[in-house]
Amino acid sequence: MAAQARSPIGVFDSGIGGLTVVRTLMERLPFEDIIYFGDTARVPYGVKSRDTIRAFTRQITEFLLARDVKLLIVACNTMAAVAIDEVRALSTVPVLDVIDAGARAAVEITRKGVGVIGTPTTINSNAYARSIHALNPAVHVYSQACPLFVPLVEEGWLDNEVARLTAREYLKPVLEEQIDTLVLGCTHYPLLKPLLQEVVGPGIQLVDSAITVAEQTAAALDRLGLHNPQRVAPHYQYYVTDVPLRFQTIGSRFLGRELTHLEQVRW
Amino acid sequence: MAAQARSPIGVFDSGIGGLTVVRTLMERLPFEDIIYFGDTARVPYGVKSRDTIRAFTRQITEFLLARDVKLLIVACNTMAAVAIDEVRALSTVPVLDVIDAGARAAVEITRKGVGVIGTPTTINSNAYARSIHALNPAVHVYSQACPLFVPLVEEGWLDNEVARLTAREYLKPVLEEQIDTLVLGCTHYPLLKPLLQEVVGPGIQLVDSAITVAEQTAAALDRLGLHNPQRVAPHYQYYVTDVPLRFQTIGSRFLGRELTHLEQVRW
Repeated sequence: MAAQARSPIGVFDSGIGGLTVVRTLMERLPFEDIIYFGDTARVPYGVKSRDTIRAFTRQITEFLLARDVKLLIVACNTMAAVAIDEVRALSTVPVLDVIDAGARAAVEITRKGVGVIGTPTTINSNAYARSIHALNPAVHVYSQACPLFVPLVEEGWLDNEVARLTAREYLKPVLEEQIDTLVLGCTHYPLLKPLLQEVVGPGIQLVDSAITVAEQTAAALDRLGLHNPQRVAPHYQYYVTDVPLRFQTIGSRFLGRELTHLEQVRW
Repeated sequence: MAAQARSPIGVFDSGIGGLTVVRTLMERLPFEDIIYFGDTARVPYGVKSRDTIRAFTRQITEFLLARDVKLLIVACNTMAAVAIDEVRALSTVPVLDVIDAGARAAVEITRKGVGVIGTPTTINSNAYARSIHALNPAVHVYSQACPLFVPLVEEGWLDNEVARLTAREYLKPVLEEQIDTLVLGCTHYPLLKPLLQEVVGPGIQLVDSAITVAEQTAAALDRLGLHNPQRVAPHYQYYVTDVPLRFQTIGSRFLGRELTHLEQVRW
């Protein structure tokens, strides 16, 4: 199918983290319709094998393409890390992803070295280092898996002593390296930004890929002439594979507004 | 099919936590074969909806019954809390579960009141309080969800300052009540036992349902005449739906020995 300006943007994640990307898209591109897909029945992907993640990613990509999206955003670092080639191979529309967006922003900012934090699967995939080195082989990259950050964010412990000690523990080896830029390599981490900035200090700039991917999306729509010409209130639709306890509460915290138009897909 | 003494015991969980039950079964019943099923591709269940958990539970029960187990142990508090009736309705062999085992032990021990800690779904289901009150309506029960304990255990942070502060935070409201017994309502929690005993102090007895369900299993085999008469090294088989990063390492920590005979089931 041909990409159409009035079609929605498709955004997907393994769960609710990608709603931080939807939030920045709403702010940056206030006239675009958005369809979000969160695989809440099978979340988290960050602890699953590559084969399983690739199979799940194909299924979601096909679901969104069948809904005539004009652009696909992989708003999940784990899927972007291990399955971006699957998405690109299947997709008939342009594909953007949070890893490419974060890597580009980091390379533009850094003068010394880049730290990357994320889930174990993202970090072990080495996808950020590969993306950064493809852009500039001279940049030093130091990576650290932070498996407790996602559950801390979902518990809403964003600024207490447990969150602070956990951040200090995870960031200690990263801060011993010469870095001036820290990439938040997981869509949950923007909610920890104030705490992380406090722990790393003012000398290190945080890269929030929710913001950078929204900028890339705006640039892609410019280039392709695909901005929605309508100036009416946009339509937002959220598909999830499960509606767990407290989903509306947590989702609204990620989205920065009330989460409505939620529909459960049963696979 | 009729239950046979030489058949294996079937144990299942949403992931690897149930291996703490397998471990105590191996110690208590060293001549029994065991088949374990861990739904590692879809773990954790504790944050999913009741309907999803019930559907997944039926699928696993059918898988183990097809392998001619002589007894089924639901080694997952979340499944026991919301889907035990599904298991009992499907099963042609006796069914034991960690909630019933924990509730019976707590009622025997307590003289003042019982605290119960677990995942949000287990606690919200109120299954422990219902089971305890069915045995003795006079026992006071105080419950507390501890969503960060599972990721802490899986990270291996069993005795550091983050784990200690988290335990103090979660247990503060429980300790303000008059309790003398604390039920570890999640199969991950036995690994936190030393820390939890330190936080609650010597006046409170911990109930580890891995131990109590192994005792119930021994009693059931006595009663039904289903002890394996063979005195050879037993066979252990582990089925999982995914083999994530560090699975062998984490699994061996739960099991207290090396995890071998692992087979992946693709659903």
